[in-house]
Amino acid sequence: MPTLTHFKLCPKSRSVRLALGEIGVAVALAEERPWEWRKELLALNPAGELPVLALDSGAVLCGAYAISEHFAETLAAASKEGRTAPLFPGSVEDRAEQRRLVDWFHGKLDREVTRELMFERVYGHLVPGRAHMPDPDALRAIRANIRYHAGYVNHLAHERQWLAGNDMSFADMAAAAQFSCMDYLGEIAWDDFPAAKTWYARMKSRPSFRPLLADRMAGVAPAPVYADLDF
Amino acid sequence: MPTLTHFKLCPKSRSVRLALGEIGVAVALAEERPWEWRKELLALNPAGELPVLALDSGAVLCGAYAISEHFAETLAAASKEGRTAPLFPGSVEDRAEQRRLVDWFHGKLDREVTRELMFERVYGHLVPGRAHMPDPDALRAIRANIRYHAGYVNHLAHERQWLAGNDMSFADMAAAAQFSCMDYLGEIAWDDFPAAKTWYARMKSRPSFRPLLADRMAGVAPAPVYADLDF
Repeated sequence: MPTLTHFKLCPKSRSVRLALGEIGVAVALAEERPWEWRKELLALNPAGELPVLALDSGAVLCGAYAISEHFAETLAAASKEGRTAPLFPGSVEDRAEQRRLVDWFHGKLDREVTRELMFERVYGHLVPGRAHMPDPDALRAIRANIRYHAGYVNHLAHERQWLAGNDMSFADMAAAAQFSCMDYLGEIAWDDFPAAKTWYARMKSRPSFRPLLADRMAGVAPAPVYADLDF
Repeated sequence: MPTLTHFKLCPKSRSVRLALGEIGVAVALAEERPWEWRKELLALNPAGELPVLALDSGAVLCGAYAISEHFAETLAAASKEGRTAPLFPGSVEDRAEQRRLVDWFHGKLDREVTRELMFERVYGHLVPGRAHMPDPDALRAIRANIRYHAGYVNHLAHERQWLAGNDMSFADMAAAAQFSCMDYLGEIAWDDFPAAKTWYARMKSRPSFRPLLADRMAGVAPAPVYADLDF
């Protein structure tokens, strides 16, 4: 069985867990604390980043980009026959839109929100010897960015069936994974973004999402409604 | 003819210019100053990021990820017949390695070096009303990161024909584009990284690279050997 090296509150790891769930690929999970910069992780992925998927063939796929495109490619035939959901469904134009949004969520949103939020509110608590207190100015900037990004998802979810168009794609998984990390920390005022809330409720109720809702980080309790399907 | 909206010292724009040159797709260039956040750019790409490629069909491809994978997909047939160089050549494992490295250069390296360096040394001069002086501490950290990344490229170039393996791929274009922005600013001590230097000289001598060597930014002169093939 392939092994996915991940961190519970790593949004890119989460997007891959959702994708593997959607396409029906079972994996063993190995948890890694990325800030420990362990030599075993660097041997797997010299970038020291997550997720990393070690396949049964011995091949090692590093990062959400390489992993998602690998399965998009290798499962294309099974997808065409309707045996799995494709990660990038539809036409070549549809895929360009899906990839634009994956880049938005795993690039822009990750940089403007999640990476900073994790540092301020999670890593700071967990890294031994570094009793980081959240910086109020940084948190204020992050929270303004959360509203901007939640507003954009609200706009997309209002206009479309799924974020990138008529079909669920890896763009939805990347977005849901990113927002789920913020949601774990209780950072999203969902009622201000009703279309985004409806979309997130649909994502949350998928079987692929269940393992994420069961995640608990020692020392960082989830927000009260994190795991509720009715939030 | 398709139009590529770009910025001369944007590494992701440069990687796409290299890719289009390698696969023989001619485009008209439209220059954009991304920090102006113009509504015309936001209408093309709501992320306000570059590059953006408007195709003759009316489709708009946003970002190096969507653009590179679009051409990888649409030109696959022509590539197989040897009529163009494929952007992601070889086997599915080869492509996973190429994408790992694209992610390294356009993700990790961009975040740890180029984005910060551009802010400190280029945007600071160009943004009207913001006479930013480079921060010596920030520059010191960036320069340490440059040596780490140049060392990694040196390692790859020493072990392999091209950075990701036996064939040139979009990983080489992403890396060359990123390093070319640092090189414009004279930030790379190439003689300390001989294998990386040999690889960069090969990239620099390709016809696809020629337009990049002719780029000049008003107010930011290139380093003396920036355009020299013998550096």
